[in-house]
Amino acid sequence: MDISSDIHSQHISRQFNQELEELKTHLMAMGGLVEKQVQDAVTALLEGDSALGRQVVENDRAVNDMQIKIDAECTQVLARRQPTASDLRLVLAVIRAGSDLERIGDEASKIARNACELIDGDNGSRGFVEVRMISEHVRRMVRDALTSFARFDTELALKLVHEDEQVDNEYQSAMRSLMTFMMEDARSISPVLSLMWILRALERIGDHANNLAEYVVYLVKGMDIRHTDPEDLDAEAISRRD
Amino acid sequence: MDISSDIHSQHISRQFNQELEELKTHLMAMGGLVEKQVQDAVTALLEGDSALGRQVVENDRAVNDMQIKIDAECTQVLARRQPTASDLRLVLAVIRAGSDLERIGDEASKIARNACELIDGDNGSRGFVEVRMISEHVRRMVRDALTSFARFDTELALKLVHEDEQVDNEYQSAMRSLMTFMMEDARSISPVLSLMWILRALERIGDHANNLAEYVVYLVKGMDIRHTDPEDLDAEAISRRD
Repeated sequence: MDISSDIHSQHISRQFNQELEELKTHLMAMGGLVEKQVQDAVTALLEGDSALGRQVVENDRAVNDMQIKIDAECTQVLARRQPTASDLRLVLAVIRAGSDLERIGDEASKIARNACELIDGDNGSRGFVEVRMISEHVRRMVRDALTSFARFDTELALKLVHEDEQVDNEYQSAMRSLMTFMMEDARSISPVLSLMWILRALERIGDHANNLAEYVVYLVKGMDIRHTDPEDLDAEAISRRD
Repeated sequence: MDISSDIHSQHISRQFNQELEELKTHLMAMGGLVEKQVQDAVTALLEGDSALGRQVVENDRAVNDMQIKIDAECTQVLARRQPTASDLRLVLAVIRAGSDLERIGDEASKIARNACELIDGDNGSRGFVEVRMISEHVRRMVRDALTSFARFDTELALKLVHEDEQVDNEYQSAMRSLMTFMMEDARSISPVLSLMWILRALERIGDHANNLAEYVVYLVKGMDIRHTDPEDLDAEAISRRD
């Protein structure tokens, strides 16, 4: 290879790396917005701020636009650069992660809509303790999932897969408490149902954070661990695999 | 190009087309299984057949395995064949569709689990009319979505996008009826909640069928219509675009 073509191919490869970095940067920007949407939706509920709730519903459009833009960029990179091996896995992981972030955005929007209904109905705050606890857990999961993606940190990612089980347990227990409230007082049925939809949305957000973590393992190790029982995931064995 | 290399490239291209056809065939096989899962889950509920319900939960593993296999095949095709234009769109559409089919499978499994709880609790059949109506609508949507994918039929696909709105209306109205049952009789709260989760799962299946339809439009026309208001979709304008 002569020097000029060597410089040319280095140039191409630098551009390509830059494009891959940009995909990641755009995904992280989308992740930041989605994190804020979840936080604002929960704040709207807990502080009775319906204006904030309506803003979350409004902002969901921006989340959707970001996903379409990221998908188009990924398709462009696939068509023009025809990446293979770990570069291909990165592009596919960004496409998948964008889809989960978009769904987290949808769930935040559902939480906000239910919060607005609850606020307008001027109901009490029974069940808020449960929402606060699970929402803090789930928000930490989303943040950690994004951090593990940004740093390609499989150890943090695998920690998350186990944490999702805890959220599921907290969710089941919260649902049982809420059902008791309903049975005690028929007038609470409608507001408690809204809280149940909110808890359900939070639980789904935990599932999506879990998916994000699985893509990090796929991306770094080339292993597809979706649908694997967390009990069967040996963190050490996976982290030794390179 | 001399004759031998011409024959060689025709050979490659025939193999490539065959691989793309296989992706589609495998996706359709997965679709067939998922359709059956939805149908069996609803039958389990309506006919009180808890053995069938448990079988649906058990079969979800097969759905998951199919998705992982299809994803691996798509990744292989991307890495080895480096498709562009409509071939690339087909591979990406298969990846996305596989993800939605897997989620439909999850929802079928949730329906089956809730059906088993209801059957074991030996509850009445209030709310079954609503479930039957919506499930028939949603199952037709899944079937049509798969048909539109198999035939690259954008007209059928666009019809579905409008139908999803109807399902959402039916769902809202069914939820209101179920809430009335709860308020009338506190003892019905627990079984009616199970029915609400079932309706919710059916509504989600309608959303996923809608997503499948959107991928068909993307695949055939190269247009990303996700997050576009159905009112803004002019079927004629889209079908003229080639």
